[in-house]
Amino acid sequence: MKNSISNATINRLPIYLRYLERISVLGAKNASSQDIGEALGFNSSQVRKDLSYFGDFGKKGVGYNVDILIHKIRQILNLDQSIPICLVGMGRLGQALCQYNRYQNDTMKIKAVFDSNKDVIGSEINELAIQPINELQKTIKRKNIRIGIICVPQQFAQEIANIMIHSGIEAILNFAPVFIKGNEHVKIHNVDFTADLHSLAYFLKKKTP
Amino acid sequence: MKNSISNATINRLPIYLRYLERISVLGAKNASSQDIGEALGFNSSQVRKDLSYFGDFGKKGVGYNVDILIHKIRQILNLDQSIPICLVGMGRLGQALCQYNRYQNDTMKIKAVFDSNKDVIGSEINELAIQPINELQKTIKRKNIRIGIICVPQQFAQEIANIMIHSGIEAILNFAPVFIKGNEHVKIHNVDFTADLHSLAYFLKKKTP
Repeated sequence: MKNSISNATINRLPIYLRYLERISVLGAKNASSQDIGEALGFNSSQVRKDLSYFGDFGKKGVGYNVDILIHKIRQILNLDQSIPICLVGMGRLGQALCQYNRYQNDTMKIKAVFDSNKDVIGSEINELAIQPINELQKTIKRKNIRIGIICVPQQFAQEIANIMIHSGIEAILNFAPVFIKGNEHVKIHNVDFTADLHSLAYFLKKKTP
Repeated sequence: MKNSISNATINRLPIYLRYLERISVLGAKNASSQDIGEALGFNSSQVRKDLSYFGDFGKKGVGYNVDILIHKIRQILNLDQSIPICLVGMGRLGQALCQYNRYQNDTMKIKAVFDSNKDVIGSEINELAIQPINELQKTIKRKNIRIGIICVPQQFAQEIANIMIHSGIEAILNFAPVFIKGNEHVKIHNVDFTADLHSLAYFLKKKTP
């Protein structure tokens, strides 16, 4: 099944999940593809198609059982497993991501943080002591870290990625504004704020320059 | 032509652009779709297809003229225009984005920043004085702000978006972990780090929970 799910669907599943978890807390028992689509700005047939990958567990006129759907999506996304994360680069962005993570009640958790700046090494952020980069490799192995987040300046990003890959990490989320190369064993997602802004610009009204 | 370009292509154009601008600085005159694809981890036929939307200006065996391609992509993305941006929410993430923006030599520029915290209002970040939220509407109009970035806590995100939309902003980049609703005149892109991590988890090895 793994290969039959498109990247676009995989990218939407966490968005469905966030919504379903929110309405579940509020007491919702069922949700139709139309409810989900309207709340999230997706076409309901798109939602139905995405969810149909995981078997037909929606009922006509009633919709999906919210808790079963949450369970299924978490299972498909491997979120029923513990996924320890490490983060390298404790500048403003790294700190912001740590804080963001703190409020997530999730199986994914930042378990180790690193920086090269001697002035911050040893200080604590959200109950994690900032470690020096030279401890990255052994910490990844010791704590079974599976995903690495890179928030270092772009000239150091590939070097950090190489250490992560060499240490057996399975996926990397890269915030440095440079394209990181991996290998066939490591999934890399490059986040790029400037690219997001540039894509948005496409939708602006044309004006004569 | 506008409607015929897929979102996936629009999202790749800024990535091509970043690469082309980099190799142009390094002196490259031509680039083939294969060069571009290999450097960025895309299939070369994908690259060729994406660039074919803009007319056939690649030469067989030689590739694309780098500077013409840069010019074309910037034109398509409206980056040949001045695009003033405002940012609301000067926490760690907001500060990180401001800093990120500072080093961009671009027609897109953060021109105004806002926060609700009295302790930071009036202080400067990258030569911009932090303004109170109640000046958001008039500043958007006065400075012709076209894109708004939202970095406030999730419970305030929709309220800030509403002010932006009401003030005539054309697009919003939302970093608050909540789905923002707009209308047909405003393009909204919700950035969600947790969703990025959850999508990555899909690619991890299956382990028995």
